[in-house]
Amino acid sequence: MGISAAIAKESSSLTLDNLQVTVDTIWVLITGSLVFFMNCGFAMLETGFCRKKSSVNVLAKNTIVFSIATLIFWFIGFAFMFGNGGDYLGVEGFLLLGKDSFNALDLDWSKATLYAKFFFQLTFAGTAATIVSGAVTERIKFGVFVAFSALFVIIYSIAGHWVWGGGFLYNFGVRDFAGSMVVHFVGGCAALTGTWLLKPRLGKYVDWKETEKRSIKQTSFNGKKIVTMYPDNLSLATLGCFILWLGWFGFNAGSTLSANAEAISHILLATLIAGAFGAFGALSATTCSWIFYEKPSLSFIINGILAGCVSITASCAFVSIYSAAIIGIIGGIIVLVATILLEKSEIDDPVGAVPVHFACGIWGTLAVGIFSLDPQTYSWSYLFTQNQNIRGGLLFGGEIDLLFAQIIGLMMVGAFTLTFSYLAWVFIAWISYRLSYPSNFGFRPVLGLRVTEDEEIKGVDSLFVEAENE
Amino acid sequence: MGISAAIAKESSSLTLDNLQVTVDTIWVLITGSLVFFMNCGFAMLETGFCRKKSSVNVLAKNTIVFSIATLIFWFIGFAFMFGNGGDYLGVEGFLLLGKDSFNALDLDWSKATLYAKFFFQLTFAGTAATIVSGAVTERIKFGVFVAFSALFVIIYSIAGHWVWGGGFLYNFGVRDFAGSMVVHFVGGCAALTGTWLLKPRLGKYVDWKETEKRSIKQTSFNGKKIVTMYPDNLSLATLGCFILWLGWFGFNAGSTLSANAEAISHILLATLIAGAFGAFGALSATTCSWIFYEKPSLSFIINGILAGCVSITASCAFVSIYSAAIIGIIGGIIVLVATILLEKSEIDDPVGAVPVHFACGIWGTLAVGIFSLDPQTYSWSYLFTQNQNIRGGLLFGGEIDLLFAQIIGLMMVGAFTLTFSYLAWVFIAWISYRLSYPSNFGFRPVLGLRVTEDEEIKGVDSLFVEAENE
Amino acid sequence: MGISAAIAKESSSLTLDNLQVTVDTIWVLITGSLVFFMNCGFAMLETGFCRKKSSVNVLAKNTIVFSIATLIFWFIGFAFMFGNGGDYLGVEGFLLLGKDSFNALDLDWSKATLYAKFFFQLTFAGTAATIVSGAVTERIKFGVFVAFSALFVIIYSIAGHWVWGGGFLYNFGVRDFAGSMVVHFVGGCAALTGTWLLKPRLGKYVDWKETEKRSIKQTSFNGKKIVTMYPDNLSLATLGCFILWLGWFGFNAGSTLSANAEAISHILLATLIAGAFGAFGALSATTCSWIFYEKPSLSFIINGILAGCVSITASCAFVSIYSAAIIGIIGGIIVLVATILLEKSEIDDPVGAVPVHFACGIWGTLAVGIFSLDPQTYSWSYLFTQNQNIRGGLLFGGEIDLLFAQIIGLMMVGAFTLTFSYLAWVFIAWISYRLSYPSNFGFRPVLGLRVTEDEEIKGVDSLFVEAENE
Repeated sequence: MGISAAIAKESSSLTLDNLQVTVDTIWVLITGSLVFFMNCGFAMLETGFCRKKSSVNVLAKNTIVFSIATLIFWFIGFAFMFGNGGDYLGVEGFLLLGKDSFNALDLDWSKATLYAKFFFQLTFAGTAATIVSGAVTERIKFGVFVAFSALFVIIYSIAGHWVWGGGFLYNFGVRDFAGSMVVHFVGGCAALTGTWLLKPRLGKYVDWKETEKRSIKQTSFNGKKIVTMYPDNLSLATLGCFILWLGWFGFNAGSTLSANAEAISHILLATLIAGAFGAFGALSATTCSWIFYEKPSLSFIINGILAGCVSITASCAFVSIYSAAIIGIIGGIIVLVATILLEKSEIDDPVGAVPVHFACGIWGTLAVGIFSLDPQTYSWSYLFTQNQNIRGGLLFGGEIDLLFAQIIGLMMVGAFTLTFSYLAWVFIAWISYRLSYPSNFGFRPVLGLRVTEDEEIKGVDSLFVEAENE
Repeated sequence: MGISAAIAKESSSLTLDNLQVTVDTIWVLITGSLVFFMNCGFAMLETGFCRKKSSVNVLAKNTIVFSIATLIFWFIGFAFMFGNGGDYLGVEGFLLLGKDSFNALDLDWSKATLYAKFFFQLTFAGTAATIVSGAVTERIKFGVFVAFSALFVIIYSIAGHWVWGGGFLYNFGVRDFAGSMVVHFVGGCAALTGTWLLKPRLGKYVDWKETEKRSIKQTSFNGKKIVTMYPDNLSLATLGCFILWLGWFGFNAGSTLSANAEAISHILLATLIAGAFGAFGALSATTCSWIFYEKPSLSFIINGILAGCVSITASCAFVSIYSAAIIGIIGGIIVLVATILLEKSEIDDPVGAVPVHFACGIWGTLAVGIFSLDPQTYSWSYLFTQNQNIRGGLLFGGEIDLLFAQIIGLMMVGAFTLTFSYLAWVFIAWISYRLSYPSNFGFRPVLGLRVTEDEEIKGVDSLFVEAENE
Repeated sequence: MGISAAIAKESSSLTLDNLQVTVDTIWVLITGSLVFFMNCGFAMLETGFCRKKSSVNVLAKNTIVFSIATLIFWFIGFAFMFGNGGDYLGVEGFLLLGKDSFNALDLDWSKATLYAKFFFQLTFAGTAATIVSGAVTERIKFGVFVAFSALFVIIYSIAGHWVWGGGFLYNFGVRDFAGSMVVHFVGGCAALTGTWLLKPRLGKYVDWKETEKRSIKQTSFNGKKIVTMYPDNLSLATLGCFILWLGWFGFNAGSTLSANAEAISHILLATLIAGAFGAFGALSATTCSWIFYEKPSLSFIINGILAGCVSITASCAFVSIYSAAIIGIIGGIIVLVATILLEKSEIDDPVGAVPVHFACGIWGTLAVGIFSLDPQTYSWSYLFTQNQNIRGGLLFGGEIDLLFAQIIGLMMVGAFTLTFSYLAWVFIAWISYRLSYPSNFGFRPVLGLRVTEDEEIKGVDSLFVEAENE
């Protein structure tokens, strides 16, 4: 039969190289599946952290955003990020058509199949887009979020090209192994502009009553009273945290895009350790900051773990596991400080996306310049493009130049992402405003972006079919 | 020591072929584990979609059904499905005894171990059985469901033999790569007969009051008023959806039963894309059907994703990823139309199992005949038995004959499954009726299958120890 | 470029042996990730089984305990367990420093990387520590639990050395493939001492009122009335159960620490079957024990599955899948009997950790001595150190000596763990007591361990920031 013949042919053509390709591909697909599952983690984290009356809305956002990322990254993003092109943009390979469009593919150290690489990168794009969702939740219009996600995937792909697609920042020496900058900082910038433009949730910052005893802790920089809005369901938030931590094993160790035993063990262990020590950092920081929180806080344990994971993402392949522990602890402390500063600045981020992804994204990117070991330390270091020309960081015999490159990278990517996210929000707000208030002359972005006061008080869930259930 | 010697022996016997067997087996075990986890996905989806007073019952059903599937499929089903035998049934290999009983094993293109193959197929049987659970929930007797599940696994195994075990439908040219027909359509048929025999939940269809303003939308074909029963917990339903989507990567890409890099990347990506575009299909369909739903619906996003996954299951190895997107979108639209038709027909399916698995199971099976590419397109096509003699579909240079075979397959499998599911339900109903009403002369199946009115109003959970907690 | 050269070098050095190392390492990392995820499973199980007012507390415990296990096992535990040393303790390799410290590593049959092995063993230590959490929940002080977890990881590592690290029990012939004794029995001993010292939750055992009709079922051995405290959220408990069952595939099949196709398929299938039949055991046992539970109980289905998994853990590589089914059923029955006995003994274990891990841990360890096959049955048997010198069990042609060794093992490990857990609890209680009641002369351990009556009535969640939300 044709089958036996085909199998015989396949068998005879079985070579060591082929089998290595198979093993690499399996590794990429499995780790990519874990990253895909992080979308579930974010959905659970965010629905758990926000209030009950917004849960359907946040779930719908997190579910549909992956579909949008799939559409845009497939049609446009992957070509922008990894297609043949120049220093600033890839310009071939739209719709994933033409395998030759990826001749210059900067993932070419890996022999995994093109579809496997695309799948893995797609799950990253989806993750970046999901980061925004939590920060803007409980008040954004569903349609506005959908539209922004589409534009954001394009912004992400362009910034990604600069660092991972062989663009000018890569050539300048910026190094980011698995995306503290490319994924988390970029997602965090978009989240920051969004939550800033949207303004805080109703009732989050109120005037102090004459009779109330004011506390420093509860007073914003602007003198308002900060009202704590408690999470609805910490079981789901914890579930989300564990799913994300698990997913991060795939996120970081899969970024090798090829299965080298030493490399993947090292990276996976570093990720576990940074997360675990991130929890310590957050817990000891909360314990110390007695002024703010007299009791332990589960939310900070959760965000501490995520902070540790974000912080190690850029450097997991460059640093020792001892450095990973320190990077994680500092990440856990940063998340607490950033949360307090943000809250006092009257920027309302219901799930802590900005402290986790923006602040620790910065820290993780800088950590590369501080803790990286001489690349000769690990025999596998040269295997991955991301490692090429990496130098020792400040603490390990290096000059300042790696750290300097990282700072430049953050400034360029930050300036680009903040600007274009801002423009994207305003553009969408304008369209939405024109549709909602066709007869109005002026333009207030916040009115375009936000649900009405009435809808917000009833809860954004009231805009969904399912929420008629009360 | 004995150990060193054994290891040395093992090492000396390490060949490329052995290692490929190891890699294939790992792939089957990991993807099978993902399919196993789909049982958790179904449990979460169904407990989330049904009402609070039925959640313990639905969880107990979904938990125990996997144990039952294990028992029956191990003792009987696997032999029926893949044991040596004829066109209609395997007759050797009961209890998994005698490796020679599987000489004609129609999984023999894969060199993974027999236990790995059995494990993978077992998780499929468990999944098929779980599909029924959601449709009959909130009113079925626990014991009746348990008994039906046992009989259903046998029905499933026989139908499975026809298509996957080298039976007459396979020989006729019917092709179903990972089970749109064998798993989902078969499970959907059993769900349909069950929910039809059980009648709707109390209060689901009521008479319009004189004073009420009737709407077309809320009126059944029979002129009754359709009462919407809202899902209890959409966070858990969303969790279930993501677990199922993840599991589907294993479901489809694992059905290769062997790790071919190109094949598994292609199939996994097609599954992701079909799910993502299924969500679009459902979302745009809901948006269009303004008459029915003026707002977006999270339930339809969820069921749209699942619809896309069911729809691509049969053809994931035969079609391009562009076709996968189209198949997914159409699946997402079908699920909405089928849900509306079913509801208007006064067939009450609390979680949408029939629209998702029955309707999209049909669509997915037909899609093979429409979108399949010439098998020469992909070099790996000949590797899998399921691919053997596949021809191009209608749209890609094929004749009508592949589509025709698919239609015949659906008719044969549908007639068999509907009939025997019906008989199984009635048989169990009769026993249950005789036990509950020993002195009654007549026989009303619905009385045998359903809990009492009282129990249903209190909630089926009242029949569990845990539900005394109120 | 340096990269191409490095890749070329890597490629030329690609040998069959290297690739096997890669495949082994991937297997260890993926199964270890599943075991890691069991921490999420325990968190969901326990938050689901306890009452609402304790959920934040139990989540915080389960989240931070993994961080603690990481710290202690990395710094001390792994060296104690697997470092070079003697019959009772490893004494080299603290902080994972010095690869030579693991020359005598009793995991040396596996060629996976040291970091991969450490990662896998770390997830085991984390799991063992988590077992304690559920039994002591709803009344223990958070700080006390954190401190005990740290000491417990050391106890675990020492006992583990005896059996897995080449210690005296291993040399005596005790065999425990994946940890019924080393992980579950040890964790169960610590849980038992903890819950016994802590005393029952307030209101769990009360005096019968004069007017009440006493039932045998509800009366403790001491004549008190047993008050049932219902689980808060069985959806989450079921989710936890499925995550744990999935994790167990990794727990058992990953304990090979190397990918042998026959071995891992056999072990994984045995684990699935034992879990499935554990559910049957528990369900039929509850159905039989009509006196106690007139209705089916989802909690017992869940704990039956876990019981089956614990029971097969020691013997999964030594017994046939038919024996696995029997071992699972018996485990499911044991869990019911143990639950009833424990409850009547006025030892209050809110989630059933002692029946599942302690009782079934004993049964699983003994099952090795009863059901083990002659090691020549499976060609892969000699591959793993854990299998070395295994003999047939009582039922399969063996003498009593294997069973005898298992009993001795249980006695030694039990005596050690119970004693040192007790000492650890009392030591921590004393410090806590001195801190809380500095002026008191006496010492009541329970006062050191427990939150105040007030805090317990309000719920232990009241001690967390998030719980101010009411």
